[in-house]
Amino acid sequence: MSDSRPIGLFDSGIGGLTVLKVLHRHFPNENFVYLGDTARLPYGSKSPLTIRRYAEQNVAFLADQDVKMIVIACNSASTQMREEQILGRPVYNVIAPGAKAAIAASATGHIGLIGTRATVESRAYETEIQRLSSQATVSAQACPLLVPLAEEGWDQDPVTNIIVFRYLQNLVAAGIDALILGCTHYPLLTGSIQRVTGSSIQLIDSGEAIAQMMKDDLAAGKWTAGGSSPGTLRLMVTDGSTAFLNLSQRILETDSVNFDVVNLNKETSK
Amino acid sequence: MSDSRPIGLFDSGIGGLTVLKVLHRHFPNENFVYLGDTARLPYGSKSPLTIRRYAEQNVAFLADQDVKMIVIACNSASTQMREEQILGRPVYNVIAPGAKAAIAASATGHIGLIGTRATVESRAYETEIQRLSSQATVSAQACPLLVPLAEEGWDQDPVTNIIVFRYLQNLVAAGIDALILGCTHYPLLTGSIQRVTGSSIQLIDSGEAIAQMMKDDLAAGKWTAGGSSPGTLRLMVTDGSTAFLNLSQRILETDSVNFDVVNLNKETSK
Repeated sequence: MSDSRPIGLFDSGIGGLTVLKVLHRHFPNENFVYLGDTARLPYGSKSPLTIRRYAEQNVAFLADQDVKMIVIACNSASTQMREEQILGRPVYNVIAPGAKAAIAASATGHIGLIGTRATVESRAYETEIQRLSSQATVSAQACPLLVPLAEEGWDQDPVTNIIVFRYLQNLVAAGIDALILGCTHYPLLTGSIQRVTGSSIQLIDSGEAIAQMMKDDLAAGKWTAGGSSPGTLRLMVTDGSTAFLNLSQRILETDSVNFDVVNLNKETSK
Repeated sequence: MSDSRPIGLFDSGIGGLTVLKVLHRHFPNENFVYLGDTARLPYGSKSPLTIRRYAEQNVAFLADQDVKMIVIACNSASTQMREEQILGRPVYNVIAPGAKAAIAASATGHIGLIGTRATVESRAYETEIQRLSSQATVSAQACPLLVPLAEEGWDQDPVTNIIVFRYLQNLVAAGIDALILGCTHYPLLTGSIQRVTGSSIQLIDSGEAIAQMMKDDLAAGKWTAGGSSPGTLRLMVTDGSTAFLNLSQRILETDSVNFDVVNLNKETSK
């Protein structure tokens, strides 16, 4: 038995493509539809109520695309949407998988978190980590400049190295041995981040963490895989700016990236 | 004869408060209402169609507040809203005043422009400057990192100085002698910008440029001033995040900043 309906992902913009890329590598026979809410990005500086409202609209849109499950490829949105099922579909957010992976990676139980203001202020990772391991402690730092630096493509740039050092120095000094990259843009800056953390701090990537949880759930029969032919990718955005096309090509490592521009209000009112 | 109705300003967020502050200083007896569309900021990375749609909703909202004129305190929005009258009210955008001020300030006719991607790609300043002075030339540079640096409050920080230098070095080498600060956040970084430009390049601030044009128009009878008592400020935002409260206090140089959170959809549908 197979289920060829696509897996739906959404993000505030195109950072979530780092998650799509990882999932596509782990599940090459699945079809994926990706929605980037570029008309309203970023979510990370917005309030919980506004982020929740946007996330609900994105989920409704994906449900209209007949997806078999929904992956919230956005940390800020994940903090405000913790349900395991919505509109009859399993929902994966980045918080639980990231928390679980960080606990597994940390020997000392001292875990670092970097993310947007919304993600850090929500304390969603702390709550989940302490639920799973009451001994663990979390040190968190909001890093508002890292998304625009990733979008500029300045990984391993001296300026980026300085800014990452400034954001991370207190976490490193505090003795963390695992660091949650709590924003799906951050994998684009792993060069600079690793220069500051060194090799003794393990970086936790949202995409890899979700892929692991999806594999476990597939083995447990919680969802049904697609067929045996190579899967397809369909990419949609809510704003037609071409500014992010370069970044998308860089993330997906291909020149042929095509986005359909969609209107959430129209699509979800049918 | 006086007209005590407020002057309405809008911006994608709170950068436009730099314009409000200048206008309030020049017109202390006017009442002002300010709308920051923080639920959808920033506009500068979005497409012309999306920016236009958001700007129209903001204007409709301000018209409902019975404003006597509308000031677009946002460069990205100004590029997509060039009408001089909308809904029966005079509209001031930053483009024409900034272009005029830059031409007046430049001896060589070589004018620099820094702004968001949307502002630079629109070529709105170039078009207006060349309409006013066919001899003038414009060198432009998009500076996506400057808004988040301003929001972090890192003016005169070594990192900001390096980034500003990187963005401006080609404009300075090209020989500009006036520089349009084509984003209402940038006055927060004049310390770093002036370190790079030196004193021989004159900085053009959107607020001062609009204030000058409004003064000329007031003298010409194009609008009617308020009464003789001190004016009031009312501040509204579309998202209730408190992340920008510190920045607002820094811009307005007061600890007592209060924002009302408004819903554009509800208010404009009445």
